[in-house]
Amino acid sequence: MNITWELAHLAHVELLTPKLDESIRFFTEILGMYITETDGDSAYLRAYDDYEHHSLKLTAHKHSGIGHFAWRSRSRESLESRVKAIEATGLGIGWIDHECGYGKAYRFRYPDGHLCEIYFDTHKYKAEGDMRSALKNTNSKYPARGVNVRRIDHLNLLAKDIRAFADFQFGVLGGRNTERIEFEDGPKGVWVSVNNKSYDLAITEDHSGLNGRLHHLTFATNSREEILIAADIALENGVFIETGPHKHAIQQTFFLYLYEPGGNRIEVANASARLILDPDYETVVWNKEERMKGQAWGLKTVESFHTRGNPMPEELI
Amino acid sequence: MNITWELAHLAHVELLTPKLDESIRFFTEILGMYITETDGDSAYLRAYDDYEHHSLKLTAHKHSGIGHFAWRSRSRESLESRVKAIEATGLGIGWIDHECGYGKAYRFRYPDGHLCEIYFDTHKYKAEGDMRSALKNTNSKYPARGVNVRRIDHLNLLAKDIRAFADFQFGVLGGRNTERIEFEDGPKGVWVSVNNKSYDLAITEDHSGLNGRLHHLTFATNSREEILIAADIALENGVFIETGPHKHAIQQTFFLYLYEPGGNRIEVANASARLILDPDYETVVWNKEERMKGQAWGLKTVESFHTRGNPMPEELI
Amino acid sequence: MNITWELAHLAHVELLTPKLDESIRFFTEILGMYITETDGDSAYLRAYDDYEHHSLKLTAHKHSGIGHFAWRSRSRESLESRVKAIEATGLGIGWIDHECGYGKAYRFRYPDGHLCEIYFDTHKYKAEGDMRSALKNTNSKYPARGVNVRRIDHLNLLAKDIRAFADFQFGVLGGRNTERIEFEDGPKGVWVSVNNKSYDLAITEDHSGLNGRLHHLTFATNSREEILIAADIALENGVFIETGPHKHAIQQTFFLYLYEPGGNRIEVANASARLILDPDYETVVWNKEERMKGQAWGLKTVESFHTRGNPMPEELI
Amino acid sequence: MNITWELAHLAHVELLTPKLDESIRFFTEILGMYITETDGDSAYLRAYDDYEHHSLKLTAHKHSGIGHFAWRSRSRESLESRVKAIEATGLGIGWIDHECGYGKAYRFRYPDGHLCEIYFDTHKYKAEGDMRSALKNTNSKYPARGVNVRRIDHLNLLAKDIRAFADFQFGVLGGRNTERIEFEDGPKGVWVSVNNKSYDLAITEDHSGLNGRLHHLTFATNSREEILIAADIALENGVFIETGPHKHAIQQTFFLYLYEPGGNRIEVANASARLILDPDYETVVWNKEERMKGQAWGLKTVESFHTRGNPMPEELI
Repeated sequence: MNITWELAHLAHVELLTPKLDESIRFFTEILGMYITETDGDSAYLRAYDDYEHHSLKLTAHKHSGIGHFAWRSRSRESLESRVKAIEATGLGIGWIDHECGYGKAYRFRYPDGHLCEIYFDTHKYKAEGDMRSALKNTNSKYPARGVNVRRIDHLNLLAKDIRAFADFQFGVLGGRNTERIEFEDGPKGVWVSVNNKSYDLAITEDHSGLNGRLHHLTFATNSREEILIAADIALENGVFIETGPHKHAIQQTFFLYLYEPGGNRIEVANASARLILDPDYETVVWNKEERMKGQAWGLKTVESFHTRGNPMPEELI
Repeated sequence: MNITWELAHLAHVELLTPKLDESIRFFTEILGMYITETDGDSAYLRAYDDYEHHSLKLTAHKHSGIGHFAWRSRSRESLESRVKAIEATGLGIGWIDHECGYGKAYRFRYPDGHLCEIYFDTHKYKAEGDMRSALKNTNSKYPARGVNVRRIDHLNLLAKDIRAFADFQFGVLGGRNTERIEFEDGPKGVWVSVNNKSYDLAITEDHSGLNGRLHHLTFATNSREEILIAADIALENGVFIETGPHKHAIQQTFFLYLYEPGGNRIEVANASARLILDPDYETVVWNKEERMKGQAWGLKTVESFHTRGNPMPEELI
Repeated sequence: MNITWELAHLAHVELLTPKLDESIRFFTEILGMYITETDGDSAYLRAYDDYEHHSLKLTAHKHSGIGHFAWRSRSRESLESRVKAIEATGLGIGWIDHECGYGKAYRFRYPDGHLCEIYFDTHKYKAEGDMRSALKNTNSKYPARGVNVRRIDHLNLLAKDIRAFADFQFGVLGGRNTERIEFEDGPKGVWVSVNNKSYDLAITEDHSGLNGRLHHLTFATNSREEILIAADIALENGVFIETGPHKHAIQQTFFLYLYEPGGNRIEVANASARLILDPDYETVVWNKEERMKGQAWGLKTVESFHTRGNPMPEELI
Repeated sequence: MNITWELAHLAHVELLTPKLDESIRFFTEILGMYITETDGDSAYLRAYDDYEHHSLKLTAHKHSGIGHFAWRSRSRESLESRVKAIEATGLGIGWIDHECGYGKAYRFRYPDGHLCEIYFDTHKYKAEGDMRSALKNTNSKYPARGVNVRRIDHLNLLAKDIRAFADFQFGVLGGRNTERIEFEDGPKGVWVSVNNKSYDLAITEDHSGLNGRLHHLTFATNSREEILIAADIALENGVFIETGPHKHAIQQTFFLYLYEPGGNRIEVANASARLILDPDYETVVWNKEERMKGQAWGLKTVESFHTRGNPMPEELI
């Protein structure tokens, strides 16, 4: 199978938080997510139309940052072939039992140190009772609470060496490079799509000297109107708004950046009806001059957006 | 002062319900309203941007229907002059202490028997603590719960004799007749605006032989998108949808009709940016042929809409 | 009649433009307005649901800026009483035949020199043929072109002496002061509502030493979604976006500021379902600290917003 | 490669129309599409973000109906393997030069007689000059005209034998069966997705005794708000609205059904943020009882929806 299509989608992300209870409250009360399960220092959550056991794991930790993230492969064969390719790079760690005990996952590191897993067997969430949607093609009931995010959308990581990250992604794991920032001295950001969404993972340059940092994690709403409402909900509840709502020129994402109580940057976003259906889509490349124009409608990118990231805790490095 | 402008707005409506607790839950959990106060068999509620103590009073009763409704006058002078005019018709009942003890109100009947009050002095709601909005020009915090209705919008009553109702409204109380259904044998419906909204009260013909019936009470959302979301929330929570979402030709209202657990028909609606700013607006008259076309986009009016109403309890007649 | 309610609404604004043809193209092709009539160096335009002959007059001139603006009074009696009050201030100019020959208007100056007219008799636009709406309660056909603005919304002027401006407005013409910026050394901005919209006119402080300047003129859309679309339309057509889309803390207006080709600042805005129905609404006052927070969701006010205005041409002073 | 993923997306549809000029006007002025090219009795059109030369071909004909439709394969290898599979069924016709001369396509029939093509090489549309978008990741300029449809979405065909159609689709061409109507006596409708959209093709049962009929062709907007606006645009322009706007229970599509002047049923729809990312998604099956509930919010399916289709012209059979 063509390596382009070996991965199915971004499956889940583990965020670390020094304020677990407050973070849980943010994701449930403000974003409108559901808790599937709590287990010691971790809570497993999902947006109402996420189909797996969880798309977000929150783990208590003295620092904020990303614990690990996971790809679901398109098939068992895809999983086997990707694991072989990863092992050949020396970045593999090994098979583990998947969290919560469904199937097995292979753990490895990206070149900048981020921990990642890939798996195929999964636990599909079956909503019961009050959680069940009246529409059988919806994974659980529309929450009617807070921002009502529909599903996990994408993850943005920071990395020192964008080229190394991209070579690993596209040469070993798969996916398409739908957009890229390319200055004269090299790539500054790369957007990875593994399906028809315009991206599932973004990697932007880290100038801090640190490794394995998180830029942000994004959940999708059904409409742009709900992003505007989300801004009011943030305002009303004392949630810090870093920037937005506005539209990124890159990927056309209609965005709002918030900080959850644990200190991680969380985006809520809507891509309207945009999809990349073209199977041999040509990467859109943005140069320095184009980036200087700011966001789509002229908003200047806030400085903190270029510098602030959540470092990976030492013991995970 | 010109009688046209003596009333300020529809202030509140008292609905009767045989299922008080379930009705309270509907208006708070599904519509997203707040409870200001409960008092014996009654609960007082308000939408997040209603500025008075309450816009809805729910009272336990063996039947559903309307208890009374109220107009706030534009000034104390307007109140005095309207009361004189009402008294001259013989439909006046007398001054009462306003519910919840703020100021005095004058009670009277409309020609079809509906109980009504008019007052000027009021209790402006001051949200405190958690209920306070981050924006000082919003009456309370955006609830981020259910349909998030913003304010009471209008009331639709049924009456045997539309002409008598209209004569009383425009000749005694005031307001403008913005739209009207007029068949060859007379008026079938009249829409009353007392401000720049296109209507605050609608009266449509009652063929049942009963008096003082309620057709529906309406709350407004900020957008049409939230009416679509409201339909999903109704579906997910087992709330009966009678018709909609769709757009009325009359008044262009984007509507959704629900039944609250007590049996009263509740509309959630959005009028987009429509306002009647023209001070000598000419009544728009709809004839039978035009009404046969159905709603704006062709939806046929459901049969129950023409027949179902909530009678006034005997002891109120 | 109470002076509060003597005016009905902001009726029209005359903008001066050194690029008449391009300005006409902007308002028709980009904003989606209709031309009612052209007459020598002027064009008369209206949004699709404006009910009068025009809400915008564009006049060729070597500079940009405002020519005059106009209030429609609530009645003929209101007109007469306001004219008497204006004459008593010494700021009156005299009766003129209304533009385009319908009725008479009284011309006067605001304290900062802005030319203004007040009238009651008007020419209500009757759309014919292709311009006619399928809904008889809509003033003309939905244009399905550009931003599809629905109606004129408000005007923002600059004035050296805010207090003088406000005293004249509320003491002589009428209206309610719904919101105000008040620093320790005095008022910096005043918002005037003459009906149930939260404002029809805003006056903000002019530090330039000039008189009679325009800050911006605003047209309303039906929804916030259409403001987001407007931003894309501006971007696609090379229209300069000064700031937005975002939400003002003051008045909660969802805004987008554009420059039309003649150099005048034009806002497209949506107020969602917000109305001021309370007849004795208490002015919301914003102090310096509150203003330093920026717009509702934290956007910093762009510098040009504080400084750039369109001066009144010398011959109009 | 797994047969599931051999096709990339629905590429284009050829509609026949007895009123070519009026149909062109409908798709350009009402839906907001662009003409790429006209050639004799045919016109080639595209929505503003369609990336190929055309997504719609309109051909003058004495009847309405579908001429042919086309799939783009995911790769050249996919094309070759699918053609082999088609040839083995005896339904193949042969290689043809693609319309407009870019690459080659393989022509074949579906079991009910519908003509179809599959190809990989294509002509990617490069917007120039005025047609160019200010955002380099948008295929052409946002039209700001009519409904502003973004891209072709899906095609719904009628077929006598649903099972034969489905066996051919999933056994020979590929794709996933995301939803299905299954009564006790067999399947009544099948929804086919070849990517992460929830469907690209739907086949519903034809009771007419005819072959190769079209039910409808659908274009997608960016938001549900634009579907509501589309209903007004249809109303204002005398376009027949068959049903909607409303939400299908099946696939959750927010729909509006129109007839273009040539007589073909055209849907404009929005799927909000819904995507099927799960690579082993389990088909959602709807039984008779569930279908009797009508659409998602209770709207009864209009009778014409069950009966009216556009037959394939005789000479194409």
